[in-house]
Amino acid sequence: MSHPDLSHGDFTLPGEAGHEQLTLRLAEQWGADTIRDSDGTQLSPEILQSGRAIYSTLCLVRSVQPWAREHREHLQQNFLMSFPVVAERTRTTIELLAGYYTEQFAVNFKDSPQRWWQVFDRTTGLEVPKSHWRADPRRGTVSISGTRPGHRYTVNFLAYRLWEEISMYNHLTNGWGDREHLAAVDPMQPAVQKVLLAFLERWLDEHPATNVVRFTSMFYNFSWFWGVDHARLRDVYSDWGDYAMTVSPRALNLFRKRHGYALTSEDFVNGGRYNSTHNPPSRRYRDYMDFVHDFVIGFGKKCIERVHQHGKKAYVFYDDHWIGVEPSSPRFHEFGFDGLIKCVFNAFEVRLCAHARGVATKELRLHPYLFPTGLKGEPTFKPGGNPALDAKNFWVDARRGIVRAPIDRIGLGGYLSLVEAFPEFQEYIAGLAREFRLLKSFHAGGRPWVAPFKVAVLTAWGDLRAWTCSGHFTAGIELYEVVEALAGLPVDVEFVSFDDLLARGVPKGVNVVLNCGRAGSAWSGGHYWADPRIEAVLTNFVQRGGGLIGIAEPSAWPQPGQHFKLARVLGLDRDTGDRVANGKFKFKRPLGAFGPHFITTDAPAGTALDFGKDVDGIHVFDGTAQVLAERSGSPRLVAHGFGHGRSVYFSGFKYTPDNTRLLHRALYWAASQEQGWGRWHSCNVRTEATYFPQSGRLVVINNATAPQHTTVTLADPKHKRRVNLDAHGIAVLEV
Amino acid sequence: MSHPDLSHGDFTLPGEAGHEQLTLRLAEQWGADTIRDSDGTQLSPEILQSGRAIYSTLCLVRSVQPWAREHREHLQQNFLMSFPVVAERTRTTIELLAGYYTEQFAVNFKDSPQRWWQVFDRTTGLEVPKSHWRADPRRGTVSISGTRPGHRYTVNFLAYRLWEEISMYNHLTNGWGDREHLAAVDPMQPAVQKVLLAFLERWLDEHPATNVVRFTSMFYNFSWFWGVDHARLRDVYSDWGDYAMTVSPRALNLFRKRHGYALTSEDFVNGGRYNSTHNPPSRRYRDYMDFVHDFVIGFGKKCIERVHQHGKKAYVFYDDHWIGVEPSSPRFHEFGFDGLIKCVFNAFEVRLCAHARGVATKELRLHPYLFPTGLKGEPTFKPGGNPALDAKNFWVDARRGIVRAPIDRIGLGGYLSLVEAFPEFQEYIAGLAREFRLLKSFHAGGRPWVAPFKVAVLTAWGDLRAWTCSGHFTAGIELYEVVEALAGLPVDVEFVSFDDLLARGVPKGVNVVLNCGRAGSAWSGGHYWADPRIEAVLTNFVQRGGGLIGIAEPSAWPQPGQHFKLARVLGLDRDTGDRVANGKFKFKRPLGAFGPHFITTDAPAGTALDFGKDVDGIHVFDGTAQVLAERSGSPRLVAHGFGHGRSVYFSGFKYTPDNTRLLHRALYWAASQEQGWGRWHSCNVRTEATYFPQSGRLVVINNATAPQHTTVTLADPKHKRRVNLDAHGIAVLEV
Repeated sequence: MSHPDLSHGDFTLPGEAGHEQLTLRLAEQWGADTIRDSDGTQLSPEILQSGRAIYSTLCLVRSVQPWAREHREHLQQNFLMSFPVVAERTRTTIELLAGYYTEQFAVNFKDSPQRWWQVFDRTTGLEVPKSHWRADPRRGTVSISGTRPGHRYTVNFLAYRLWEEISMYNHLTNGWGDREHLAAVDPMQPAVQKVLLAFLERWLDEHPATNVVRFTSMFYNFSWFWGVDHARLRDVYSDWGDYAMTVSPRALNLFRKRHGYALTSEDFVNGGRYNSTHNPPSRRYRDYMDFVHDFVIGFGKKCIERVHQHGKKAYVFYDDHWIGVEPSSPRFHEFGFDGLIKCVFNAFEVRLCAHARGVATKELRLHPYLFPTGLKGEPTFKPGGNPALDAKNFWVDARRGIVRAPIDRIGLGGYLSLVEAFPEFQEYIAGLAREFRLLKSFHAGGRPWVAPFKVAVLTAWGDLRAWTCSGHFTAGIELYEVVEALAGLPVDVEFVSFDDLLARGVPKGVNVVLNCGRAGSAWSGGHYWADPRIEAVLTNFVQRGGGLIGIAEPSAWPQPGQHFKLARVLGLDRDTGDRVANGKFKFKRPLGAFGPHFITTDAPAGTALDFGKDVDGIHVFDGTAQVLAERSGSPRLVAHGFGHGRSVYFSGFKYTPDNTRLLHRALYWAASQEQGWGRWHSCNVRTEATYFPQSGRLVVINNATAPQHTTVTLADPKHKRRVNLDAHGIAVLEV
Repeated sequence: MSHPDLSHGDFTLPGEAGHEQLTLRLAEQWGADTIRDSDGTQLSPEILQSGRAIYSTLCLVRSVQPWAREHREHLQQNFLMSFPVVAERTRTTIELLAGYYTEQFAVNFKDSPQRWWQVFDRTTGLEVPKSHWRADPRRGTVSISGTRPGHRYTVNFLAYRLWEEISMYNHLTNGWGDREHLAAVDPMQPAVQKVLLAFLERWLDEHPATNVVRFTSMFYNFSWFWGVDHARLRDVYSDWGDYAMTVSPRALNLFRKRHGYALTSEDFVNGGRYNSTHNPPSRRYRDYMDFVHDFVIGFGKKCIERVHQHGKKAYVFYDDHWIGVEPSSPRFHEFGFDGLIKCVFNAFEVRLCAHARGVATKELRLHPYLFPTGLKGEPTFKPGGNPALDAKNFWVDARRGIVRAPIDRIGLGGYLSLVEAFPEFQEYIAGLAREFRLLKSFHAGGRPWVAPFKVAVLTAWGDLRAWTCSGHFTAGIELYEVVEALAGLPVDVEFVSFDDLLARGVPKGVNVVLNCGRAGSAWSGGHYWADPRIEAVLTNFVQRGGGLIGIAEPSAWPQPGQHFKLARVLGLDRDTGDRVANGKFKFKRPLGAFGPHFITTDAPAGTALDFGKDVDGIHVFDGTAQVLAERSGSPRLVAHGFGHGRSVYFSGFKYTPDNTRLLHRALYWAASQEQGWGRWHSCNVRTEATYFPQSGRLVVINNATAPQHTTVTLADPKHKRRVNLDAHGIAVLEV
């Protein structure tokens, strides 16, 4: 292999006006080939002329102030559900925005309430006839006649959003005083498109030094509805993937024309749950997502073409206004973006970035951001902070993903001047950048070695939400923990939906299907399990030799007397309370914390499993299920043979080194591939090994904050080498 | 008041042949007026002529051996569901009894399988057409054609029961070797009725000394299906209240004639859950229960008339063969029983016995039974045992109920000779009997004082399962814990069903409705909550000033975005996982273990609530809900004002002295009666006070195994007295 230049390139540095010398010195030290202007920063000529590429950030929908606030009818809208009101009499009046933050929302009385809104008796579940209620714009209310005392009523209504949420959040969090409140315009309105394209043209003209326009991101924010009581209920609803904030009468009319049927407010409101990514979507809502995605691509492409016409590149930041962008979509390439930038806390987010198709450059924004204070209020770049240590800890999390999947660039964000007082940080970043370039050079030689089988993660969303669930890590959602473990394992992973399974069956090359999540969630699958074909496809798959990993409440769907549709394949089920009178098979309890098994070979003796808040009430059917761990009589880890295949059940999952090893071994066992275990492998669970066949390198990383010793195996597991690693360290073996 | 004879009467002693002197001595010492012959015991003339009444036990349906075994077509039957089989090919054969104990069951191939059985594809939930399967009596199988690989199939089939379950249980538990296996005949067959009545006539003739025929109990056992693997899955299904073991083609034909529609096997099998009392019943199953109840009354009455014709009394033991007897039914009086006997472990079972209407004498069978070994295998009447202490502990549990509701008699069961070596036990029982007679004398004077409001416990079963759920105490069912607490409180309690509520609303005089149980259970209510009228009735009730106590998952029913139908009344809801993206109101956390409130006034500071395995994921809506205790952010005890009324939520319940006090206070608070708190009250939670106005006595009991000091209050809570109580002790104050 050639010797790459490890000192320069593939690094984006946030420039800071007024700190030109520092900017240029660090650009040199870190090998930065690109300098970014942060929000509101105008880079000085010294920087612009330093020979480095220039990124400039741009958020189009909030760029046209005060025009936006002067054209309320062109602001973005959404449906809101009023807080439930219990009727006391036969006439009930509901104050629509009671409980909501009125700096964010104003009721849209302009578009016919009778046409677009709905009133529900939530006690019966039935809509109240339109003739029984009327909206009062002056009072901001809806009055309902013929209400039944003791019944709950809600109104679904359209609201304009007066204050763009990111502007609102920063303003209120950082006490921005009388700084302008930005409002977001709706680019689905033709008048808005005209204004935005004119703005973009002017902006491009005014930024001749800019090489890359970094869009933040496109047009529609993730959903975020604020309450009036910021101390006690600020976030009435927030979801990283919900398209709720794209809705308008124009969108609904266009949708009807395109899809031949009309959506209602309740398709969006959904009893107050809206369309949270964590819940399995309806077919109607998926159609609507396609419709918005199509629009965002269409108008986005026009903007990107303008950028290209000015000889600049267009990158997109996977961030707040990412709705409709969908980097995992097969249509993502149609935008014509040149790059995708993802800020990462976790390895799965690295994999998410690497997974996008149709974009030449994939860049990571690493943490810590150059801010005085960290995300949890801890000191970072101020006295008491240790930003070098923070950077190391963030780096080992991201690095697990970087060794597994190719990334093109890295960078930092924030205020560069803050690092001046932290020379150890400056030095660490220089080394980190070299480490990144080295790993990139290995990927350039070819893919790293993976196990000889594939794993398919089955969810309601499939590949559209590959390597994420709904945004950054959310505690209590088991699949986040699982994808974080998978993100660093030498196994090929794909994400399939139930629709994929129906259309094409289990994909070729896949030996193990993994289904993980709570009953009713998008991750377990919810209503998709109602289709008997899903159960049959997966049962046949395992009967014929396939493997199934079920975690928490896999395949859960209410059926008479059974909770998991794949109970017979798993050899167990969960009693949700309706089988109190049904006897439970008395399984053989493991003598220690774990039963002896291939899967538990590396599990630390005498230590109980830590799966976080896992599922109880599990019972096995008979002696074919081998219970490897249990608590209070409820199995927690179970291996089961079914037909020619195998299944493994985990009652929950938490991303820890020990659990990651359990999962890794469970994948091999479920795939009936345990004889292939142990190639290119690092024994110590705090370390991981990645073999690059073309480069002939075995990369061993230490994910721990203390030095580690480990033994690595080569192609033949009998060939071993001892490796010592510094805290957060890395070793590269020529093999 | 008159001075009752505390030394004699109201006591049933189990006589034992061969131990005549002991029998007569203890009958004297304990003041027994009645002697019972145990199973298989023939009392000697000395005892029969001792001037005491004689009880003789009789179980008719297993009394006619070997006739029963020689007439298999007249044995009792039931539907069984075969264990699920996953199809591998398009033809699938199911071995019907695989997994079941074939000494208990034999398949009934005689009555047309095609007519009575059903085959289900459980993957689709659909019945397989009758033309697609056939039964093979020789092989004991059903073969199904056109099966879809990967689908689960089950067969609902009729089985004869060859071995009556109590005979089987005793035989196998006590190693009875080649002692006769008793089979139970089905009295719904006319031929059987003839045989049984003839037997009864003969038996009555042959037992001239018997004064009371104690039926054990009537004709049909509670449901108990045994598996073949006694070590690991003996009880495939068992339920104290399920009518499953009454079914036969004759019963189904008669039912159709009576009710005008046909039941199917699936009405009984229910996906393998059968009709467990813990699950809310269907209307069809309730019709079937009425049908069987009617039959049991009809034929039972005939038997009882024969008893009366012989000048004897007929008592019924509420025990194994109690199905169709229903002591809480408004029709129970139609039997014409003279007495009801209930064995009791708990106070709620005392209340159950006291609650039956239409029977003159109510008797308790106390524990410990006179057996060498206790129910959990511990020594009782053998070396290492302490039966006097056991008796005390059982007595304090039962006594809480006895002070609250009148009971006529008590007694013991088992082998009397075993007590010979335990003089302390003999003496304690003499004292216990005096204590019982004293309490009975107070009840004779009139009802004890109760709070000036009533409590209604709302379940799917209502009064039919008053003061029980399904048989003896079952761990993990919250309502058992609650009724045990209520059984000793000075509050009038009634049990109402959802049907009652629809027909008549909340009963007059009821200030507090209590709903307690897990989602989907008969105790919470399950599908009954689907009727919006239930929510409206209860919401109106609280709006107008009523009180609601919700425990665990009250009013739970799946609705879009809401889990508890009465969420708005309770001021809270449970997130079962579909509201991950909905913000949760940040309530004010109590500073210590409990927030200050009327309800928590007596709660021990610094000690966390012990509600057993309670419910998590609770969130309150706003500041109107006062969180009195929480764990990990999930409220556990919440007081809430709604309209003119109030609600209290408990996340679970466990019967402890502290929790009983919490519940007692919560009832007062929910009823808006806290100003009436503290009359005729004992402060120490391990003690309880009962005031008998007509007798002018205040009875103070110590429920603890250690001495207790307490202060009791009189009619005016300012008037107090100090009371010292021995362990298990009692004090009677003249006031």
